[in-house]
Amino acid sequence: MDAITRIERTLSTEVGRAKAPGCPPSLAAAMDHAVFPRGSRIRPRLCLAVAAACGEDRPRLTEASAAAIELLHCASLVHDDLPCFDDAPLRRGRPSVHAAFGQPLAVLAGDALIVLAFQALARGAAGAPERLATVISIVAGSVGVPRGIVAGQAWECEANADLSQYQQEKTGALFAAATASGAASAGADPAAWRTLGERLGEAYQVADDVRDVMSDAEELGKPVGRDSVLGRPNAVLRLGVDGAISLLRRLAEGAIEAVPACRGAAALREHIISETQRLVPRHLAARAA
Amino acid sequence: MDAITRIERTLSTEVGRAKAPGCPPSLAAAMDHAVFPRGSRIRPRLCLAVAAACGEDRPRLTEASAAAIELLHCASLVHDDLPCFDDAPLRRGRPSVHAAFGQPLAVLAGDALIVLAFQALARGAAGAPERLATVISIVAGSVGVPRGIVAGQAWECEANADLSQYQQEKTGALFAAATASGAASAGADPAAWRTLGERLGEAYQVADDVRDVMSDAEELGKPVGRDSVLGRPNAVLRLGVDGAISLLRRLAEGAIEAVPACRGAAALREHIISETQRLVPRHLAARAA
Repeated sequence: MDAITRIERTLSTEVGRAKAPGCPPSLAAAMDHAVFPRGSRIRPRLCLAVAAACGEDRPRLTEASAAAIELLHCASLVHDDLPCFDDAPLRRGRPSVHAAFGQPLAVLAGDALIVLAFQALARGAAGAPERLATVISIVAGSVGVPRGIVAGQAWECEANADLSQYQQEKTGALFAAATASGAASAGADPAAWRTLGERLGEAYQVADDVRDVMSDAEELGKPVGRDSVLGRPNAVLRLGVDGAISLLRRLAEGAIEAVPACRGAAALREHIISETQRLVPRHLAARAA
Repeated sequence: MDAITRIERTLSTEVGRAKAPGCPPSLAAAMDHAVFPRGSRIRPRLCLAVAAACGEDRPRLTEASAAAIELLHCASLVHDDLPCFDDAPLRRGRPSVHAAFGQPLAVLAGDALIVLAFQALARGAAGAPERLATVISIVAGSVGVPRGIVAGQAWECEANADLSQYQQEKTGALFAAATASGAASAGADPAAWRTLGERLGEAYQVADDVRDVMSDAEELGKPVGRDSVLGRPNAVLRLGVDGAISLLRRLAEGAIEAVPACRGAAALREHIISETQRLVPRHLAARAA
């Protein structure tokens, strides 16, 4: 079965629990809206690819780790879009959860998705209970305090903060959890796998910066997008388009070098090359080649 | 060491992690504000009492279960107090978290406390990894979907809902998790312990209804409190003060009868009698005696 089928099947099963009798239908619908239809699923695919490279032997736990990371990613988008943060009316080309369901259900759907991530892990560890605490520590650490995405988001509420550093940390945290939990799910040492995730997270953040500037420029005739409006750090504003794309390439190369020795290293490097190539918009790929 | 010392020590250690380098100080302060100074800690004390009755053999896991339940309770208060729900300016006689720190940090502090609850469980299970998945399933099930407190709160967003039933379920969920996770932490069968928690939760809800009506009546000269203003079900408004206190006594008796056979049953019954007596305000205790 291919990676995306495994991921979507696990997410459907987990989010489907919200549709069980006794659950308020609007909450179930809001959770569904937050998770489907799918985005790129880049983090859970990375998690599965690392587990495979490590000689995956507990597929249910790997799938649960991948799903948990995606559920937490979706939860963070729902809460970050709230009026008290980004006040974003759209997400993936559709109304954001609070725009579609109201603020109360957006707060609750985010909360429920966080809890669901840990329920999924507990269920997925049935065949490997001795790995559960490690996987939970990795996944929870990437979300909570002191250095997870919630902490990263909270830096935006501080008067004196190096937003560039914390934005990077915020993106990097879930990518590092994807690689480390993929390894831990397969019984490998997770610590060796964090650098790969951090570098990929940084590359993804730069790619996001490029999209923020360039898709607006293309589609709306505006030179800059939301980062500029919200006063956020953006690699394109700092380095120019060519500079940002060069940086992206260097980060992608650094990620490939960070793959630890393992049975499936060659296939994993191929996966990373293919993924990072997709990060550069096609019409820009030639510019810094 | 007495129960409250064990609970406060574990909560201090866990919330203390938010003060580690790298965590935004305002988020750490908001989390601290949400958890300290202590409320009654009725749920974690119940969890410890049940574990003791079952012959507690993994004290760190019991303490982690108790702390996780209290952290999740505190998180739910922070989010329920938000302007889009109860818009409550005060909690435990002090400004609510959003009143003191603003809405963004209140959303994030609630999120971080939810995540911290699962981190605490993973850490507490170091000596008993085979019990972790069960405890997580119990605790997470009481918070998430389809029947946890988040789902209970979401019923308030539904046009057609029996609020009385769902309010009861919402309170009962964490109490049932307290008894069931106390048992599971001690290696006992959690299923046998749910009824006790549910009945205590119902008794606690009635006591809360009494306080909602009577403390306003005493202190502010108003006959009714927040439930009436918010159109919420309240046992005193439905049954009168004497009727509500009679109901509370019957529920307390039912809870005592629901204690399963176990080594420490006698001591646990004493604990429950003492706890439920404290639920009735002293000046009302004589009325329905």
